Amino acid sequence: MPKLRVLSGMRPTGKLHLGHLVGALDNWKQLQDEYDCFFFAADWHALTTEYAATEIIRESIQDMMVDWLSVGLSPKKSVLFIQSRIKEHAELHLLLSMITPLPWLERVPTYKEQQQELTTRDLSTYGFLGYPLLQTADIIIYKADKVPVGIDQVPHVELSREIARRFNFYYGPVFPVPDPLLTEIPKLLGIDGRKMSKSYDNAIFISDPPEEVRRKTSAMFTDPNRIKRTDPGNPDICNVFSFHKVYSHPETVDRVNRECRQGTIGCVEDKKQLAETLVAYLAPIQEERARYTRNLKRVEEILEDGCERARRVAAQTMEEVRAAMKI
Amino acid sequence: MPKLRVLSGMRPTGKLHLGHLVGALDNWKQLQDEYDCFFFAADWHALTTEYAATEIIRESIQDMMVDWLSVGLSPKKSVLFIQSRIKEHAELHLLLSMITPLPWLERVPTYKEQQQELTTRDLSTYGFLGYPLLQTADIIIYKADKVPVGIDQVPHVELSREIARRFNFYYGPVFPVPDPLLTEIPKLLGIDGRKMSKSYDNAIFISDPPEEVRRKTSAMFTDPNRIKRTDPGNPDICNVFSFHKVYSHPETVDRVNRECRQGTIGCVEDKKQLAETLVAYLAPIQEERARYTRNLKRVEEILEDGCERARRVAAQTMEEVRAAMKI
Repeated sequence: MPKLRVLSGMRPTGKLHLGHLVGALDNWKQLQDEYDCFFFAADWHALTTEYAATEIIRESIQDMMVDWLSVGLSPKKSVLFIQSRIKEHAELHLLLSMITPLPWLERVPTYKEQQQELTTRDLSTYGFLGYPLLQTADIIIYKADKVPVGIDQVPHVELSREIARRFNFYYGPVFPVPDPLLTEIPKLLGIDGRKMSKSYDNAIFISDPPEEVRRKTSAMFTDPNRIKRTDPGNPDICNVFSFHKVYSHPETVDRVNRECRQGTIGCVEDKKQLAETLVAYLAPIQEERARYTRNLKRVEEILEDGCERARRVAAQTMEEVRAAMKI
Repeated sequence: MPKLRVLSGMRPTGKLHLGHLVGALDNWKQLQDEYDCFFFAADWHALTTEYAATEIIRESIQDMMVDWLSVGLSPKKSVLFIQSRIKEHAELHLLLSMITPLPWLERVPTYKEQQQELTTRDLSTYGFLGYPLLQTADIIIYKADKVPVGIDQVPHVELSREIARRFNFYYGPVFPVPDPLLTEIPKLLGIDGRKMSKSYDNAIFISDPPEEVRRKTSAMFTDPNRIKRTDPGNPDICNVFSFHKVYSHPETVDRVNRECRQGTIGCVEDKKQLAETLVAYLAPIQEERARYTRNLKRVEEILEDGCERARRVAAQTMEEVRAAMKI
């Protein structure tokens, strides 16, 4: 039986950090062994919010690809490509727009939410309203079976399902209806306790050198009720402990949990231990980064090969789409 | 000095009739001598209203091209092409969507009007809202200087101007700002006095054989106050007279005007004269039609050549667009 196909994308809007790893890349890396995976840099999506200052997109794409390869996404296992190089996405997006009721897009929960959140940008654009439709085109043009998402992205996959069904209803069965592949994402906040984000200046980047990791870790918030080193702490509300749970050995997690509650380990010492764990965790990734950064030609070759493979699939689907639509 | 560039398109949604000739093709034919003309079959636009029954689009394209060639559009003078074969239109449409404020599209007058008029179709789709944006992409991707329009289409060109300016503001001067080329369109209604339209079953088609032209002309409404042959008539409110003004010799127009007011020519006789004028007018066009219909391979070659020429221009513009947007 052929493997089921998985598709996912990431917006190139800055350097990748640990939040991207636990939120997506760690999961993608595992999926590649079980599924036929298509992963892409969503540069057209990045335009929906970054249209007024696009430099960041071009700068980020290559860097993001280096990060992807360095953390273990493999061109032997997965198709790695760049959305804007596959023009078929734009064609399918346009064709799907003809059968997509406006209210379906207006009712996507993230539409109003993001408009309210991203107040520094004017998001009342036609493209921003249509971005879940572009996502739909991204997904179904590869006839993806599964789309790995966190719970907040499920409505987008639901929309893709509805649009795929609507296309099949009007023109005949071209598209499989994609399923969300729900992924539990470990909680990993920024060093200030807010969502980890480049724009909050609270992120630990994949490319941060050891001294930077140590500096940032030492600045992390811990249990705010713990004043003196001998006060018993509460790891459940400690951001450093969340990091331990993701990156430290289970024995270390148990020990820190115990010692913190007993007041026998201080926050400073605790953070030093975490910093060394993170440095050690990032070391092999950064070695790979250095290797790929010295050989960007190879990165471009990998991308070109991925784009070529993606394009073949997308072009084949579009032939079927045009035949079904009789245009 | 190089010629200014003109761009216009027509939706392939059925056989062409005299309304298409006076409304567009007669004008296009003249423009080709003065301008560098790009004329296209707007099959993607046709989808905005015909998405639920697309057969008509494919059937109509070839027929429309035969009509275009038969009435005198020349592949030596103009670039004749099919929108859906130039994928760059879809890419530019997508990129422009990112900088196009939703209210700009919601306020296009034809948007609400057509939704109210075309009640047999559900037009509350994302694609229908975006169709003036697709038109903008169609226009500016060829850096057209002039867009021939009737007065009701001016708001669409205004929108294109605004979007071209907005692109240039964000990313630098890529697009000339297109001007409307206002065309006075002679009034030519259907045989029942309503707007000539295939869907009203009141149209005289370019391909109608003489007997059909005579039958339809004989059924035309004239001055409703004229009961008897000897009653004086009023040509100003007579649809047949509107046709005379477009198709008959000025001397005939003068004579009919006089004799009708005097009550010395009857409506039946008047319509017979008009029918023969129309038959004579259509004869050379239909000869050309027959010639092209016997040689559809030649029509396809003309189209392929036109598409190739259009694609070269569109691809060049898109290189400039991507460079300007830094993506």
